[in-house]
Amino acid sequence: MYTHADPHDLRHHGDAEVRDIAAHMTDLAVNVRTDTPPEWLRERIAASLMTLAAYPDGRSARAAVAARHGLPVERVLLTSGAAEAFVLLARALKVRHPLVVHPQFTEPEAALRDAGHTVRRLVLREEDGFRLDPSAVPESADLVMIGNPTNPTSVLHPAADIASLARPGRLVVVDEAFMDAVPEEYETLAGRTDVPGLVVLRSLTKTWGLAGLRVGYVLAPAEVIAELERAQPLWPVSTPALIAAEVCMSPAALKEAEQAAGLIAVERAHLLAGLAEFDEVRVVANAEASFVLAHVRRGAEVRERLRSLGFAVRRGDTFPGLGPSWLRIAVRDRVTTNRFLQALDQSLTMVGC
Amino acid sequence: MYTHADPHDLRHHGDAEVRDIAAHMTDLAVNVRTDTPPEWLRERIAASLMTLAAYPDGRSARAAVAARHGLPVERVLLTSGAAEAFVLLARALKVRHPLVVHPQFTEPEAALRDAGHTVRRLVLREEDGFRLDPSAVPESADLVMIGNPTNPTSVLHPAADIASLARPGRLVVVDEAFMDAVPEEYETLAGRTDVPGLVVLRSLTKTWGLAGLRVGYVLAPAEVIAELERAQPLWPVSTPALIAAEVCMSPAALKEAEQAAGLIAVERAHLLAGLAEFDEVRVVANAEASFVLAHVRRGAEVRERLRSLGFAVRRGDTFPGLGPSWLRIAVRDRVTTNRFLQALDQSLTMVGC
Repeated sequence: MYTHADPHDLRHHGDAEVRDIAAHMTDLAVNVRTDTPPEWLRERIAASLMTLAAYPDGRSARAAVAARHGLPVERVLLTSGAAEAFVLLARALKVRHPLVVHPQFTEPEAALRDAGHTVRRLVLREEDGFRLDPSAVPESADLVMIGNPTNPTSVLHPAADIASLARPGRLVVVDEAFMDAVPEEYETLAGRTDVPGLVVLRSLTKTWGLAGLRVGYVLAPAEVIAELERAQPLWPVSTPALIAAEVCMSPAALKEAEQAAGLIAVERAHLLAGLAEFDEVRVVANAEASFVLAHVRRGAEVRERLRSLGFAVRRGDTFPGLGPSWLRIAVRDRVTTNRFLQALDQSLTMVGC
Repeated sequence: MYTHADPHDLRHHGDAEVRDIAAHMTDLAVNVRTDTPPEWLRERIAASLMTLAAYPDGRSARAAVAARHGLPVERVLLTSGAAEAFVLLARALKVRHPLVVHPQFTEPEAALRDAGHTVRRLVLREEDGFRLDPSAVPESADLVMIGNPTNPTSVLHPAADIASLARPGRLVVVDEAFMDAVPEEYETLAGRTDVPGLVVLRSLTKTWGLAGLRVGYVLAPAEVIAELERAQPLWPVSTPALIAAEVCMSPAALKEAEQAAGLIAVERAHLLAGLAEFDEVRVVANAEASFVLAHVRRGAEVRERLRSLGFAVRRGDTFPGLGPSWLRIAVRDRVTTNRFLQALDQSLTMVGC
């Protein structure tokens, strides 16, 4: 089903949930890897501050990203975070019938609406495991926006299902902001040139802890990249961000990311096992990202209790297709997760579930 | 006079002229203060790298900018450099008849055109000292874009002349990227709330050596700011850039900027006195910025000779209203300027002026 209705605050993001809380609170609302950026990366970024007087030169970073995905540079565009990519897609392209697959990160739809588009939604359902049925996408959609793995459901759609959405005159935009949290990225579409109109958005924010630096990139056919680039401001990405992008493409960095992804898988299994102990909680199955989505009985109250116990989790009610009983929980280290599970137990008891 | 013609490469900028040259070359093409960013500023920026894992929170920087100009925060928008502001102005506002006063920085016109606008030009003339005659601006213009002091002419227009351009339904956009190089900023319009439709763009790039960081800001009526903000990506300015903006608003930083402006005035006088020695050179009078514009006999050849002698100056032929004999020269310290003047002497002799 799809709809125009919007009772949701599309501009609410996890960062707001930790912004106003005390420093002692444990953040499970924002999906950034802990202890990041690593020291080696911070040092490389710090070294770039010596050259701040010069305007940014994005050529090396672009070449490094292209090489990492086996693509020509004409298919790569560095952006000031994925957020800039959403705005460029919404404003620079001749799109008339965009469709957003929900529940997902709300910023793409917000950017499309702010650019004047009427946005249709395809809302995936819990009873279907929040999985995409490609045949449910209306033929008239000339831009389909989907997250993979999906924020907030943690569902990883098969690459083949997404690729099957390709049509002449249609752009298929895949937000792979969390794909580097999936071991071997086995459902990625990054680097694919055989899918017409494929646009892949990638982020360095989560794995590398660079949310504050604003850097991401777009992989797309050269003519799409050219259109997006024309709508970008001059010097869109800062020198520190370009350096970060470049060095995060190195073999050593990719190896570190892969190890981190493996660790996430282990710790996610631990979190899921813990959550399975609660009758009041049901978790979206087959979670593949660095967070899980859980339906919690009296979830809104439980979330408040968790806050009072020092744990911030992401509210689900700002995501189309979800409601106040849904909570998104970041995967953390064993100790943090155990503390969280204890707090959840306490919270459930306190609200009298 | 105004015209639609465009034989100029609007997307050519000074950074391209030093990008491909040898490291030993002295850069008088880019107008960034030398030995910047200062160490105290670099240290503050470096300290912010510890918090990169968190999303940027622009509230402190916005409040600091507002306080520095005596404005409410609703009249302030931080941007990813002035370049982002140009794109926002071109794309987010309901503008139908934009006019750009030339010669000036070409990016505003490029951004307007890329957004689909037909741009009219008011081209100021050397015989008028490149000074604005407010009555030459056609009544129909609903956006007037002017630089003050103007890049590349170094002319500082009286604030009253620019303010007199205000009309119901018209935005008057003043690019004050170089205003902080003017002692006491005595013709600034920043902080003025009595001029309807006034939009002031400010930069930290030149005085603070932050070209690589991408940070600037817009001062405008609250309803204009709200429209621009809606068109911005989420988290448009990075944490290091926000920190820089905030600390550059401190009284100590403003004092340092004022001292730097005073030094520029002294060194500019020295450069101008040196240039006055050459019969082949005539300089635009009343230069007030951190660069001067000079008409040099056989200027294109002289520029090439200067490059072979290790000095990069900014070509003038990419600016509407100028031609290949115009060169823009950055104000530098005494020793650099003397070395440049010798090289200019040699170059003029070599081309046989």
